[in-house]
Amino acid sequence: MIELALIGIGTGSPGHLTREGIAAMADADLILIPAKGDDKADLADLRRALCQQVLASPPPLAVFDMPARDAADGYRQGVEAWHDAIAERWEQVIRAHGAIRPALLVWGDPSLYDSTLRIAERVARRLPLNLRVIPGITAIQALCAAHAIPLNAVAAPVLITTGRRIRDHGWPGTVDRLVVMLDGECSFQSLDSEGLHIWWGAFLGMPNQILIRGPLPEVAGHILETRARARAQHGWIMDIYLLERCRSR
Amino acid sequence: MIELALIGIGTGSPGHLTREGIAAMADADLILIPAKGDDKADLADLRRALCQQVLASPPPLAVFDMPARDAADGYRQGVEAWHDAIAERWEQVIRAHGAIRPALLVWGDPSLYDSTLRIAERVARRLPLNLRVIPGITAIQALCAAHAIPLNAVAAPVLITTGRRIRDHGWPGTVDRLVVMLDGECSFQSLDSEGLHIWWGAFLGMPNQILIRGPLPEVAGHILETRARARAQHGWIMDIYLLERCRSR
Repeated sequence: MIELALIGIGTGSPGHLTREGIAAMADADLILIPAKGDDKADLADLRRALCQQVLASPPPLAVFDMPARDAADGYRQGVEAWHDAIAERWEQVIRAHGAIRPALLVWGDPSLYDSTLRIAERVARRLPLNLRVIPGITAIQALCAAHAIPLNAVAAPVLITTGRRIRDHGWPGTVDRLVVMLDGECSFQSLDSEGLHIWWGAFLGMPNQILIRGPLPEVAGHILETRARARAQHGWIMDIYLLERCRSR
Repeated sequence: MIELALIGIGTGSPGHLTREGIAAMADADLILIPAKGDDKADLADLRRALCQQVLASPPPLAVFDMPARDAADGYRQGVEAWHDAIAERWEQVIRAHGAIRPALLVWGDPSLYDSTLRIAERVARRLPLNLRVIPGITAIQALCAAHAIPLNAVAAPVLITTGRRIRDHGWPGTVDRLVVMLDGECSFQSLDSEGLHIWWGAFLGMPNQILIRGPLPEVAGHILETRARARAQHGWIMDIYLLERCRSR
């Protein structure tokens, strides 16, 4: 039986690693490090650096290229085929190393807008596999901590959603607070900004963390410029934001 | 200037503590441990045990009774006055110990359905205060990790809401997945359970963790019984659940 650990590592700060996560990293006999092309090379490097920083003797790291995604069949079908191809790649790497306690380091938390769990289920159809998930600090917690704000208004709900959703469907009816993830396009631009407040953050918890907050009409341009400049400088960016609709204003 | 650290400690497992959180605990010169009456004594004990378990020489712990809440003026006003009274109590304890780096250990994460940030803002009006927030593993991550499930369906939104909300307003229109928190009454009973799936968990990450999952019509009774029994046994319970509405079934 292979024990596969999916370890949530937070948003890039070694400070986000949990005791449980570090113990699982130390216990692994192989750490899989998927590389997703040049612009994501930093992310593979960050995982490598985390291992070296927190483990006295890190297990072997297997860095491997992710298969390319073919979106020709439409979004959902493209994703299904791509996940199959990734699962096959994981299986090859695990078999090639004869690993019995392989681990994957998952950005943020494995439960939130991440495909690792779905890929692991596919691997479990190909290999005898026990799956163990170790929770990690999500970008949502890192954003709120950096701004020192609560996520929710008192006893009120919060919607976690995606950039595409707010572009396609606008502000959802039933909530006054939204966390927007998976948004490469600053999709807040598609909303009527009047009466909206934003708390934005990029590279959360890392030395190059950037925070901007304020009424959306006043700070939207500043966020767009800052984001474009930071992305150009680093070759990639991870950002997230919380929006609040102020009904009374 | 007083440096107040609000440290997210996860849901009770020492494994949930982050490197950053442990460093902040070690760096504190006083750890405030609010006690909320007999049934919550376990929670104060858990915080004390966490300090002893992860710190070589824990700073002094100041255990103090929380003021009682007077809800006679209505829910919101009662909460406001109560938070004022708690802020005053914090101030007294910090002053009495002459602490300059006090810390509070916050269950889960300080951003999520927790009043600590709002109380800290009040304290900052009474004392010269710098506030530092250290994110922690929430019950949401702990629930998903324990069940080894994603929180969201692919690219779909998730609503975080409260037991009271679903009792008062039913299933909110725009989402198919809900996380329900602050629910002492198993409020899923107020919903039409047909076509709903539940992933429930209590004491997440702790040795006495309990997990139940399945179609809600089949497992609702089992959850009610299990929850009542565990609550009677321990004197308290913390639980959370994820609900999914299956439109196609």
